[in-house]
Amino acid sequence: MPKPRLAFWYDFASTYSYLSAMRIEGLAAAAGVEIAWRPFLLGPIFQAQGWPTSPFNVYPAKGRYMVRDMGRIAASRGLPFAMPPAFPARSLAAARLALVEHDQDWTGRFSRAVFAAEFGRGVDIGEAAELRALVAGAVAAGQPGHADGPSRSDGAEVDAIVAAGSSAAIKEKLRLQTARAMELGVFGAPSFIADDGELFWGDDRLEIALRWAQQL
Amino acid sequence: MPKPRLAFWYDFASTYSYLSAMRIEGLAAAAGVEIAWRPFLLGPIFQAQGWPTSPFNVYPAKGRYMVRDMGRIAASRGLPFAMPPAFPARSLAAARLALVEHDQDWTGRFSRAVFAAEFGRGVDIGEAAELRALVAGAVAAGQPGHADGPSRSDGAEVDAIVAAGSSAAIKEKLRLQTARAMELGVFGAPSFIADDGELFWGDDRLEIALRWAQQL
Repeated sequence: MPKPRLAFWYDFASTYSYLSAMRIEGLAAAAGVEIAWRPFLLGPIFQAQGWPTSPFNVYPAKGRYMVRDMGRIAASRGLPFAMPPAFPARSLAAARLALVEHDQDWTGRFSRAVFAAEFGRGVDIGEAAELRALVAGAVAAGQPGHADGPSRSDGAEVDAIVAAGSSAAIKEKLRLQTARAMELGVFGAPSFIADDGELFWGDDRLEIALRWAQQL
Repeated sequence: MPKPRLAFWYDFASTYSYLSAMRIEGLAAAAGVEIAWRPFLLGPIFQAQGWPTSPFNVYPAKGRYMVRDMGRIAASRGLPFAMPPAFPARSLAAARLALVEHDQDWTGRFSRAVFAAEFGRGVDIGEAAELRALVAGAVAAGQPGHADGPSRSDGAEVDAIVAAGSSAAIKEKLRLQTARAMELGVFGAPSFIADDGELFWGDDRLEIALRWAQQL
């Protein structure tokens, strides 16, 4: 029997998506659920709601609270937390790179690396050089034997992923993925969607989303 | 030593405040924390954020999700859940009545009765007759011996509370309370504020707000 599945929809600029990205695989493994990593862009969805930018910028009291709340939760989970130099970060290039076809867990592995850099170390993920380094790290981490020795990075493989990340095909893939998110009723991130279409919004709902997926 | 204290800020029109109202006293007693019930009006705060009505009406996808999410959570806690005939409910008169001086736990007891009627049975709390019945029930429930026999309701006491609820003094009290909420950084409900000013937003944060208050 195939494992029950839960789709994890996120934007790399989303702070609360960082919280979920760093714990979802552990919780999913314990629950016997498979995670489908679904990067998309919140920008067009926020614009459809009438927001020119993140609601945390549109509503400053909410934005100040979010930073404080993130800091408290990250601390309680032993996670580092830093805000990137500009918020929201330019997440477009990272989202495209996450959608490149590489090995089986590329999207999840690269995505965790991007989130850890952005919100764990305050890295600007809109910078091409930073992204290239993150691609190289994620390529190396996916190589057999990585855990046993120093990481190796294949320059040609990294070049190919970086080039694919700005191809017309990937641009279209991300556009379609974002349109799909909107069709599914996604209005914020992180969102979790079970195979029956049930939607859960927010890192606070991850546990019950996993239980829902288990029971299908 | 006095008990640590946590202020619970809520608007009677707020669905997630219902969830907190129905469980806060039990959790607070277990944590050894005293709850200060703080009804206020979200309307002026939403207007300052540029919303003419509840964000759940401004953003329909979010509104549909909220009803579904509330239903799931209420079911998991064994709480009845019904949306009132109009959303957001006209919460002004109820908020004023909750602020009337009566016995020591009037505000909490009356507030729980209002929330239970509105979101447990779908009662329109903007209707004067419904509110009067809720006042009468809460007066009776506060009388000594109430648990041991049939509830008695003192008509004169009910009249006095209803009259006080539309006095100039109470109108001003609610206006000041709402201004105070805004000063404290409240931007939504439920909000929980510890004595050091630490703010927590949302029913999901009630447990950590209580732990925070305990540690002061």
